[in-house]
Amino acid sequence: MEEFSKLLKLIEERKPKIGIIGAGYVGQSVARGALSVGFEVLCYDIDRSKITSINHQGIKNLSATDKFEDLKHRHVICICVPTPITKKKKPDLSILTKILTKLENQLQIGQLIIIESSVAPGTTRNLALPILERSKLKTGEDFFLAHSPERIDPGNFDFTIQNTPKIVSGIDDKSKKLAIAFYGTFVQKIVPVSTVEVAEMTKVLENTFRLVNISLINEVAAFAKASGIDIWEVIEAAATKPYGFLPHYPGPGAGGDCIPVLPYHLIDAAKKQNVKLKIVEAAARVNETQPQKIAQKAIQLINGKTKNGSPKVLLVGVSYKPEIADTRQSPAIKIWQHLKKSGISVVFHDPYVKQINGSTSQKLTLKTVESCDVVIITTHHKKIAYRQLLKNGTPIIDTRNIFENLNHPNIHRI
Amino acid sequence: MEEFSKLLKLIEERKPKIGIIGAGYVGQSVARGALSVGFEVLCYDIDRSKITSINHQGIKNLSATDKFEDLKHRHVICICVPTPITKKKKPDLSILTKILTKLENQLQIGQLIIIESSVAPGTTRNLALPILERSKLKTGEDFFLAHSPERIDPGNFDFTIQNTPKIVSGIDDKSKKLAIAFYGTFVQKIVPVSTVEVAEMTKVLENTFRLVNISLINEVAAFAKASGIDIWEVIEAAATKPYGFLPHYPGPGAGGDCIPVLPYHLIDAAKKQNVKLKIVEAAARVNETQPQKIAQKAIQLINGKTKNGSPKVLLVGVSYKPEIADTRQSPAIKIWQHLKKSGISVVFHDPYVKQINGSTSQKLTLKTVESCDVVIITTHHKKIAYRQLLKNGTPIIDTRNIFENLNHPNIHRI
Repeated sequence: MEEFSKLLKLIEERKPKIGIIGAGYVGQSVARGALSVGFEVLCYDIDRSKITSINHQGIKNLSATDKFEDLKHRHVICICVPTPITKKKKPDLSILTKILTKLENQLQIGQLIIIESSVAPGTTRNLALPILERSKLKTGEDFFLAHSPERIDPGNFDFTIQNTPKIVSGIDDKSKKLAIAFYGTFVQKIVPVSTVEVAEMTKVLENTFRLVNISLINEVAAFAKASGIDIWEVIEAAATKPYGFLPHYPGPGAGGDCIPVLPYHLIDAAKKQNVKLKIVEAAARVNETQPQKIAQKAIQLINGKTKNGSPKVLLVGVSYKPEIADTRQSPAIKIWQHLKKSGISVVFHDPYVKQINGSTSQKLTLKTVESCDVVIITTHHKKIAYRQLLKNGTPIIDTRNIFENLNHPNIHRI
Repeated sequence: MEEFSKLLKLIEERKPKIGIIGAGYVGQSVARGALSVGFEVLCYDIDRSKITSINHQGIKNLSATDKFEDLKHRHVICICVPTPITKKKKPDLSILTKILTKLENQLQIGQLIIIESSVAPGTTRNLALPILERSKLKTGEDFFLAHSPERIDPGNFDFTIQNTPKIVSGIDDKSKKLAIAFYGTFVQKIVPVSTVEVAEMTKVLENTFRLVNISLINEVAAFAKASGIDIWEVIEAAATKPYGFLPHYPGPGAGGDCIPVLPYHLIDAAKKQNVKLKIVEAAARVNETQPQKIAQKAIQLINGKTKNGSPKVLLVGVSYKPEIADTRQSPAIKIWQHLKKSGISVVFHDPYVKQINGSTSQKLTLKTVESCDVVIITTHHKKIAYRQLLKNGTPIIDTRNIFENLNHPNIHRI
């Protein structure tokens, strides 16, 4: 039987062994989906703490390894590694390239490789395919290559990998059919698209839409603030429009490894086509400068008058969004860097993040608040008792509108 | 009895006489709403054809006039005049100012003046109020001033003035209460907001959101086109994301007297506060250049080779959006201007627009299409039989994706 039919049959019988490269939130979500329909799943990661944690959970059919060669005989391999940007805001595909090269070295007849990592359009065809073809195995016959961009929203409990429609495409028809069959076992709605480029671009568009709209509201909020208008009330009112509007909210900027990152992959790809993306570039700049603006506001509030000899700021929430521990590209960390540069020491409280930047999360006691000159609420975690921040006279920069319409002299909104 | 209570009672008894200044689509919508609950409505306009048309409809309780003094004894007066921009993209409040000055000259005790015209925040308080106060009547006691931004979407048959939530505010508490009472008689959901500035800003934000997102997709579409990616398929795929995305579609640019106009009012207001709106400015520029890009595409397709001695283009649809006759700020008209400058003659077909630019709408016959070197589909009216455009070899620039996935050598998408 040809390789395509063999693998299709295996999938239909729920028998293929699944390999997942990268055991972050994306890889773990795919693993949970695959486990839910009885697949056997092996996760690969270089982070030993993740491997230990997975292996200690004792979940049936799930194990983890840091030995790449353990993936050799997996039927379906999902690549879920990060695709960050460099300090100069250029796409950094080195992790993905390294993984692909390792895969090529042990590529087996009958394997389906799926890239879930978010990339600019063209990456699967122009970067991944040539590397895998070095194996001399034939795409679409000996092995299969697909792209299905991850759509995981960490901290969102309403939408999981199972009930979020999944964009799926393949480098050829057989690869696409196999990927559709694989995800179809545990995702409720598959959205097949015509090419891998369309799949890649879909994720890029989704993230770019978010960055532009978050930056737009931050830019408009600055005008509203200068005009004495409550932007939060404006957004709430605009959101009553039953069509043509989607509310976004101001804050210290978009964080995480997708929204502020993928638009730079797009900007880079567009430059190569001599297309200038003025709106996206403007939005990226607004997002870059937002943490600095918040830091400057804190410096203004301190205004040289410090309680305990040297100025100190308390950051409440350092993860990049509510209810998670991920601090990648977190605006709180950027605010921290700006404050540090200005000679201001920083302490933090975050129920999800125990340690970062060599510091430990402080208990949110009256003493902690009193020892600081300014408090900045950077992330909205439900379990934080924000009210107690108001118990003494320390000024609070409320970047998340935690206190809503509360009129209190300590509260400074953005 | 004080004036406030008197007018409130009148409204509750459905007895106040309503005056509407500006009988365009906004004024006519308010009129329809007021008529629906039995109010007597008088519309004022300087356009005699509108007055004749309204008076010839023979609708009970509705009449129209071009004599401003006829409005003198109206209890509630809604100002629904346009607030356009100048050629230099500065707010042009001359019509609004003129109307307010005329109103001030005949302002009566007990009148409620409501501004529905879209304006930058501060306009009601800083422009309208001082003019009306020249009458020596006291705001909030002798007369009342409110702002409730129009949210009419011409051609949208799902949402009317009755079932679209209405933002309402007043310059003082009594003005606000009266405006809420008035709209509450015929609008299903009233959204009271704290200040006239919040009300003004709400409309500005709604329109700015639209302009930025339409321009964003036009800018991204240019990259997709250069990369050989079907942006329409990408948008359709992205729209399957169940949160955090709202689809917008590429085209020849946003038109009408709101979306491409109001963001310039915002840019101007922000400049006065020393706030630079980089994203909004970039979006406005993208929208300005979009018609030129379409015109250039047509010129490229003609490429000096014309059928009948001199180059000619057929524009299909000249109104700025589907199913209406309004050509204000229509991208089709801008494309027309660019073509004319390049020495290309233009004919058009639009079932809603009989005459414009001294031309008459052509029948969409084979002969009409054959006589042209390029057809540009600029607006999507349902009643146009687009298929017949394909009957000969004339190239078609399909800016609205009318032909969707149809593969045909004549069709050029954007």
